[in-house]
Amino acid sequence: MHDAVDADRLRADIEANGVFGAVEYEDPEKRGRTVRTGTEANRKARDRLVERMEDAGLDVRVDAVGNVAGEWCPPSADPDAAPVASGSHLDSVPEGGIFDGPLGTYAALEAVRAMQDAGVEPDRPVLVVNFTEEEGQTFADGLLGSSVAVGERTPEEALALENDAGETLGEALERIGYAGEGTLDPRSWEAFYELHIEQDTALEEAGAAAGVVTTITGITHCEATVVGEANHAGATAMGDRTDALAAASELVLEVESAANAVVDASSPTAVGTVGSLDVSPNATNVVPGRVDLGIDIRDVEYRSMETVVTAVRDELARLEADRGVETAFERPFDLHPTPMSDRLREAAHRAGTAAGLETMDIHSGAAHDTMHVAGVTDASLLFAPSRDGVSHNPREWTDWDDCADATRVLAGAMAEVAGAE
Amino acid sequence: MHDAVDADRLRADIEANGVFGAVEYEDPEKRGRTVRTGTEANRKARDRLVERMEDAGLDVRVDAVGNVAGEWCPPSADPDAAPVASGSHLDSVPEGGIFDGPLGTYAALEAVRAMQDAGVEPDRPVLVVNFTEEEGQTFADGLLGSSVAVGERTPEEALALENDAGETLGEALERIGYAGEGTLDPRSWEAFYELHIEQDTALEEAGAAAGVVTTITGITHCEATVVGEANHAGATAMGDRTDALAAASELVLEVESAANAVVDASSPTAVGTVGSLDVSPNATNVVPGRVDLGIDIRDVEYRSMETVVTAVRDELARLEADRGVETAFERPFDLHPTPMSDRLREAAHRAGTAAGLETMDIHSGAAHDTMHVAGVTDASLLFAPSRDGVSHNPREWTDWDDCADATRVLAGAMAEVAGAE
Repeated sequence: MHDAVDADRLRADIEANGVFGAVEYEDPEKRGRTVRTGTEANRKARDRLVERMEDAGLDVRVDAVGNVAGEWCPPSADPDAAPVASGSHLDSVPEGGIFDGPLGTYAALEAVRAMQDAGVEPDRPVLVVNFTEEEGQTFADGLLGSSVAVGERTPEEALALENDAGETLGEALERIGYAGEGTLDPRSWEAFYELHIEQDTALEEAGAAAGVVTTITGITHCEATVVGEANHAGATAMGDRTDALAAASELVLEVESAANAVVDASSPTAVGTVGSLDVSPNATNVVPGRVDLGIDIRDVEYRSMETVVTAVRDELARLEADRGVETAFERPFDLHPTPMSDRLREAAHRAGTAAGLETMDIHSGAAHDTMHVAGVTDASLLFAPSRDGVSHNPREWTDWDDCADATRVLAGAMAEVAGAE
Repeated sequence: MHDAVDADRLRADIEANGVFGAVEYEDPEKRGRTVRTGTEANRKARDRLVERMEDAGLDVRVDAVGNVAGEWCPPSADPDAAPVASGSHLDSVPEGGIFDGPLGTYAALEAVRAMQDAGVEPDRPVLVVNFTEEEGQTFADGLLGSSVAVGERTPEEALALENDAGETLGEALERIGYAGEGTLDPRSWEAFYELHIEQDTALEEAGAAAGVVTTITGITHCEATVVGEANHAGATAMGDRTDALAAASELVLEVESAANAVVDASSPTAVGTVGSLDVSPNATNVVPGRVDLGIDIRDVEYRSMETVVTAVRDELARLEADRGVETAFERPFDLHPTPMSDRLREAAHRAGTAAGLETMDIHSGAAHDTMHVAGVTDASLLFAPSRDGVSHNPREWTDWDDCADATRVLAGAMAEVAGAE
């Protein structure tokens, strides 16, 4: 069946989708697109997906928050059986690449087309899914459509979210023709697979065709504030200062050091990052009075994340004692690690073997819609190699053959789980 | 003669000047004003100064860049003798205090009035001076009027400078009626005194009435750039990162540590500050790719400043080697320390003794117009105490009695240097 995956057909879909919201660059190595939810580019991308689903004979439905699902229910399948679903997203970050999202959506469709072409006869219906606004940046922080599908947000809450122009998601979806009815319900699915680009270099380095994610890391975001005393940089003696930036710099290094210690001691997947740091008043000739830091901590083990968070809090206490600064700490966002379904993972490895393709276990440090879906049904995240690990960038790239090979693994796994012989 | 300094008259002038550009606060402890060059507040402040100079019988002239000088040439003085000048500035930073600048301008006028009231008969004319835009922030970086007076800028260069609205200094001065002729020439002055608030706490701690500045520190501004690799904070393993912010944090701590080492080893007045730090892309979930730092280094010994600058350059080289970042370093601004005139300093100490007021040697970590004037004639900077060392802030405060006492020291010194018996 894997032979039926058509690399050219998949490439044509991804390239055609990449035209919507495309940004022009002089450098031929760059292919970027900006596809925010509710834009004309988003409407066109959705319209084309629906058209391609209908070309493949799928029954397409749009839910209240614009999630799209196309069902293939061949004569072999029990229409009442729980379907096997797969998909991803079509929206992008500003000047994002052409693979992040569209690969997973069109690979799911290609898997259905390959099953059809190979005469595969599944027992269960198969769903091709496209979630609304995975990337965030327009109406929410990300994973918007899947958050409604799994019941983390009500449709009403989601539809009332506003973009920078003050338009609600409801109004935007109405405007582009994607305000549907009901809610996509992953609880009723037998299984969900998402194929995505890796966004790191493990597969590239190993020369593997597909990564089978064991766990999506948990994510904690901390906001730390360090308050010293803003003062004249010339008139304030070294001994008379309470320099918020010098104190904050010790915190930055402690986050790095605590994460490295966890990596060395127990969990090589742990990461700790001070990604944002804002100094006030931020003038060369003024001793910094206040620094606000945004800290991102992730691992496949929640215990490791806690170790790094504790190191941050301990360091803030030490800075208060040793440097006389005042500090504040908040943890506005905390998601536990999400293990993937063993059953679906094993099916993916078997599909790789059947197709003569190397698969490897891997973790995901990035969040994906699968993280939400895994809370309500068996779910599995597969990765295709990313050149140099670059993503959210017009230099993002996955070779067309690599797209097709990863899709072969996806298609084989979906067929097995859907009960095809 | 010091008895003739009228505390109430001086207070009335400073308070009346403080009304122009005044900002309203609920907190009665706050008295702030915003007086940018060329604003209506700036015009009113200048008009009132000219009026008060004329009330005291001074002959007022305005030069091409708006510097104002009022000459008192009593019958005892040789009109051709080099005059003794004193003054400061009337402009302010946004929401600055009411003393920073106006104290020195009106104290100079009060010194003349005190000499007049006490029947002092100087051999030399006495000039009361107000320099244009000492604070900068509107047309230049600071010390604008004095830079033209000492020949660091031509009047034409200065008049062509533009504010944020695109108006030139020449147009702004024309509009407020302060586009005069010729250029104030400190080379022709016998001496220059500037009285200013200390902006630190040395006088307050010592209970001294006035500080007599030995040296205005040199100032170096460095711009350092640290370039790493922006990457996904979740998908990039600790060992695969080149984190520009972690590297920059080591630089921040090295600046602090190098300045402290100089303080401990040789020069207690040395200071080193990373005042500004900008992270790119500055998002919690992205490993920082680039950091730009603004570094301020000062001391009364140029050698100490060089020691700290060398530490910065060495640390950048070390970060390139140890962390794989790329770095850049520039030093766009470098002023050597400016020693004050011993002759004028001794006169100031004698004036303190004569008035029964304690004076003390002190250094200035802040730049003042005196720094420019000292390049072309004998100059001396005197300080009045600042409560808690606060300045550039509506909480800036100097008690009225302290204003008058410091003015007594100024007046006595000016009278001596002007040849009064």
